Amino acid sequence: MKKERRPIVISRVRPAVDDGRHPVKREAGDDLTVTADIFKEGHDTLAAVILHRSQDKPEWREAPLHFRDNDGWVGSISLEANTRYWFTIEAWTDRFASWVDDVTRRAEGGQADLTSELLEGARHVSQARARAAGADAHLLDDVLARVGTADSQKAHLDALLQPAVREAVCRLQERLDATRYDRELEIVVDRPRARFASWYELFPRSQSKVPGRHGTFDDCIERLPDVQRMGFDVVYLPPIHPIGWTERKGRDNALTAAPGDPGSPWAIGGPEGGHTAVHPDLGTLEDFRRLVLAAERLGMEIALDIAFQCSPDHPWVREHPEWFYRRPDGTIRYAENPPKKYQDIFPLNFNCEAWEALWDELLHVVLFWVEQGVQTFRVDNPHTKPFDFWRWLIREVQDRHPEVVFLSEAFTRPKVMRELAKAGFTQSYTYFTWRNFKEELTEYFQELVGSEMAEYFRGNLFVNTPDILPEVLQRGGPPAFKMRAALAATLSPLWGIYSGFELCEAAAMPGSEEYASSEKYEIRVRDWNAPGNIVEYVTRLNAIRRENPALQIFRNLRFYHSDSSQVLFYGKMTSDRDNVILVAVNLDPFASHSATLAIPLEDIGISPGETYELHELLADHRRLAHDGSVPIELDPGTSPAHVYRVSRWRRREQDFPYFR
Amino acid sequence: MKKERRPIVISRVRPAVDDGRHPVKREAGDDLTVTADIFKEGHDTLAAVILHRSQDKPEWREAPLHFRDNDGWVGSISLEANTRYWFTIEAWTDRFASWVDDVTRRAEGGQADLTSELLEGARHVSQARARAAGADAHLLDDVLARVGTADSQKAHLDALLQPAVREAVCRLQERLDATRYDRELEIVVDRPRARFASWYELFPRSQSKVPGRHGTFDDCIERLPDVQRMGFDVVYLPPIHPIGWTERKGRDNALTAAPGDPGSPWAIGGPEGGHTAVHPDLGTLEDFRRLVLAAERLGMEIALDIAFQCSPDHPWVREHPEWFYRRPDGTIRYAENPPKKYQDIFPLNFNCEAWEALWDELLHVVLFWVEQGVQTFRVDNPHTKPFDFWRWLIREVQDRHPEVVFLSEAFTRPKVMRELAKAGFTQSYTYFTWRNFKEELTEYFQELVGSEMAEYFRGNLFVNTPDILPEVLQRGGPPAFKMRAALAATLSPLWGIYSGFELCEAAAMPGSEEYASSEKYEIRVRDWNAPGNIVEYVTRLNAIRRENPALQIFRNLRFYHSDSSQVLFYGKMTSDRDNVILVAVNLDPFASHSATLAIPLEDIGISPGETYELHELLADHRRLAHDGSVPIELDPGTSPAHVYRVSRWRRREQDFPYFR
Repeated sequence: MKKERRPIVISRVRPAVDDGRHPVKREAGDDLTVTADIFKEGHDTLAAVILHRSQDKPEWREAPLHFRDNDGWVGSISLEANTRYWFTIEAWTDRFASWVDDVTRRAEGGQADLTSELLEGARHVSQARARAAGADAHLLDDVLARVGTADSQKAHLDALLQPAVREAVCRLQERLDATRYDRELEIVVDRPRARFASWYELFPRSQSKVPGRHGTFDDCIERLPDVQRMGFDVVYLPPIHPIGWTERKGRDNALTAAPGDPGSPWAIGGPEGGHTAVHPDLGTLEDFRRLVLAAERLGMEIALDIAFQCSPDHPWVREHPEWFYRRPDGTIRYAENPPKKYQDIFPLNFNCEAWEALWDELLHVVLFWVEQGVQTFRVDNPHTKPFDFWRWLIREVQDRHPEVVFLSEAFTRPKVMRELAKAGFTQSYTYFTWRNFKEELTEYFQELVGSEMAEYFRGNLFVNTPDILPEVLQRGGPPAFKMRAALAATLSPLWGIYSGFELCEAAAMPGSEEYASSEKYEIRVRDWNAPGNIVEYVTRLNAIRRENPALQIFRNLRFYHSDSSQVLFYGKMTSDRDNVILVAVNLDPFASHSATLAIPLEDIGISPGETYELHELLADHRRLAHDGSVPIELDPGTSPAHVYRVSRWRRREQDFPYFR
Repeated sequence: MKKERRPIVISRVRPAVDDGRHPVKREAGDDLTVTADIFKEGHDTLAAVILHRSQDKPEWREAPLHFRDNDGWVGSISLEANTRYWFTIEAWTDRFASWVDDVTRRAEGGQADLTSELLEGARHVSQARARAAGADAHLLDDVLARVGTADSQKAHLDALLQPAVREAVCRLQERLDATRYDRELEIVVDRPRARFASWYELFPRSQSKVPGRHGTFDDCIERLPDVQRMGFDVVYLPPIHPIGWTERKGRDNALTAAPGDPGSPWAIGGPEGGHTAVHPDLGTLEDFRRLVLAAERLGMEIALDIAFQCSPDHPWVREHPEWFYRRPDGTIRYAENPPKKYQDIFPLNFNCEAWEALWDELLHVVLFWVEQGVQTFRVDNPHTKPFDFWRWLIREVQDRHPEVVFLSEAFTRPKVMRELAKAGFTQSYTYFTWRNFKEELTEYFQELVGSEMAEYFRGNLFVNTPDILPEVLQRGGPPAFKMRAALAATLSPLWGIYSGFELCEAAAMPGSEEYASSEKYEIRVRDWNAPGNIVEYVTRLNAIRRENPALQIFRNLRFYHSDSSQVLFYGKMTSDRDNVILVAVNLDPFASHSATLAIPLEDIGISPGETYELHELLADHRRLAHDGSVPIELDPGTSPAHVYRVSRWRRREQDFPYFR
């Protein structure tokens, strides 16, 4: 074995995902707390720094690490820009600090003669002086002069132990035993909306106000203010491209389309073009760009769908037959998951011999839409394409446009979902859609925020999608819609609804989670003011989210005790505890439940016996509480959830100036 | 970003220490269970193998991995030899198995025409045929012929789906998407005694039977049968080298030695030589070799102390002053931890400019003693020497002599102790010495066997050492000695005592854990049959350890419930549950305690209501039990611990042949 010096152990550097194989995710403006174990043999004093750089500023900078306890160190760096960062750690033996520690212990232990120690200390200062300039040089010259003329060991020592001297010598001295951590850890710093956003999904072709008329981008522009009033900021559109004619699906997924059936927007490509074209009935590319700008003016943005698959009429089928799977008889294979068949869709073969050209073209597609002003993409079925493809594509896009956000639409095995997030997806769909009861919600969210997943997986909680009308909504009526909205909007800073949710649409294909008369296969013009809608409730939830920074963070979710198996109780607070939100939700849409909530007074910083205020934000109702047990009753018909802002009454009589 | 294919995700490969930075430890004869997450996009069937090789057989071999659940795979390899092994994982897309899965689902789904699928299947077989020879070639030729003449799709399909065909094609086909895990994980496979051994520490100079006469190696040879009768297998000797005269310590660590005081054996080196010499009063190197052989003949071995430090009279001080620390006045610095001073010892400077020559010389020392027949070393204060030195030294020794065992004598910060084990120490001292009560014992041992530590840290539980006479022994009298012995001997397959323990020696320097009249500074000739000794108890414990394989394993320790805060209850069993040991220990040396033990019937495989036997092995007393609650009483004076072997009564009347 070759002798190699690596004198200092640097280990367990965090945050890191899979030991640094994948980046952690943060948002611009965050401080990143870095921890590590750093030690060597014996008792020398060590020093350590975080070395960090970004794609924008590629030269290493240093930030201090401080010893905490048990060989653990901590420090932090500011992540100012929406770009990629890297960090690692360097540690060294701080010779002068070690000397200070040693000589101090000797002096305190009563050692009479410190001649040798003082000589050593002066030598450290001289060596630092040789590397000093400016004010440092003056300071150290001065110390060396005082040492030279000191008339006692005490005076000599005092000169060497001045804090300013210590600071200068420690900074200037050579880094003995300098050791660097064996990995550079990556941080993807996204824009804040990657963490905090409310999504609204709508089919542009359904936005016409006249039944029978195909909606247009202009209709979408007219509809935007409604969506904005509800408090959403991302408006997500299913594919807007030409739709194939061959094997086009009819209403309710019928195998053959009737005349006039518009087909599924996910059967992408027709004579008018493929992934970079827009459906002629929606308008022009110019119209689309106006939609993007209109959203922007309202403080919102348009998100597009990326579905890398083709109808049989897509131009690529003709131009690039090598990008598809061929059967032994030479025909192209349509999408299947036997015995299910999707005759209107050809999957792309990401592993074909011409894969490099295919991947380049797919990158081109994304960049094309970024050039039209799109900054957010919802990616359809990413788990049927290779992980290494996504890693490459997302990196290529974000290297040019770090502001771009990718939402992974994968409802599949847990490790596959996590791997997509590791590969680069900014946000991910979750199992929230199927988690209804107390145990399963608690367990799932503790995994999301309490495990390493919190470092890279941002769950975007959709209450419904065009593919999923969950059983609880089919059965539970408007109370269930309110209850699920309250959960999604407060459990995660990212949530979304698919339009129709606010109208409590609940008609399903029998025995399935598919919508009846699904918008995937037909145009549906709705009355947005239909009676029984919960627009006001959704609007209030989004307003509460905006007003309370605690609800805009992932990792601060904590579950607390309620004594009812039907009442879920949890909370979120900012790190300064200035904004504290507690949420109690009745998970039973059919019956009222009462519960006693165990308010986490200590976490919040409320003293035992202190009176504090619970402001229920949905109903705007306030009450005072005095201890940690608060009884409540949740009637699903009127208020399936309570969202409390907790505040201390800080200003008492004696706090006012006149009292003093 | 460069496009690179790495189509299959292989992650969380275990066992691994710090993501493969350090080896895991096992013993020759073990099977190593390997687990990993392996998956790719979509629904293809994957195949995977463990690739493994050893220092002895450096070419890669393969062992199968099997899908378990949730994208988890499992397999195992046999670790036959006392050497180093490496393993990694390779996975690929099993095209033929994917085809079998697909065509089966189609056939079961009722797809009428399978022409295209059958063509594809035959193509797979043809491709495999092109790579086949011998019996494989015959088999596949035969299948292709049957396919050519099949008179129905069913017959065609049946031919392709034969299990033997599947096995052959899957084995022969090209490994599509072949991906290898990004690390090679190392396993240090030690000899079995690295895991299971009972240590006995004695000072050779105290083995004379005549007070005042310096003991010799020949005295040690005479004493060995006693030690063997007690059941110990490793006899560990403090340093056997010449002892310095300069600043020699007197009795009870006095600053000056009186005439005739022998000095501390750790003040190594005198006019007669240093680390490769033996103290002339002990005998010659030849005598030492006879001692090694005598131990071997009794099935034991001699372990030596490695203390890399020098008395001021060590030859290196004269020959290699560059290996020591110098003070500014040119003198060599003695060991200190201000205000504590060790004037009789010069530490070596492992970081000196001539460090490479120093390290080489230290390696030479160890190899010298290995050549004298020593295979086990107890290393003194390893935490004051660099980790990278130990990593190098242990690796250099074990590359030549894989049988060599190193015990780390570090009682220091937890992360430092763990790092020494990671750097290569075979065994480690532990905090057991200071863990006395139920909570602290449970917590500590759950960390040792329930965390990643179990992969690399083998705790050797010493009940006392020449430096440590724990408070519980000073206060608790013989009941405490028995209780601590029972704990050490059953909690870990490695335990040890320093001689005198079996005589219940308990006299300490006031207010300290130091022995009064410490053997470190004087010769102590003892009466090994002194009244009140617990030789029989220790002998019985070692016999129980030998007879019960469950006690020879680390990772099988489990804690169970006892309803007394003073009664610790735990157990160990072999993986086949053939040997099941349960241990209850009264941790209070002063009073009897009764408790009800919750016998883990399900873990043991005893059915509810089944009668089973508890055989208490220390007193050789048997009882029958019928349910999971067993009341006991532990009187520290007579039986501070119960060690039960649990056995089922398998043979009932109906089991006997005549009954049928």
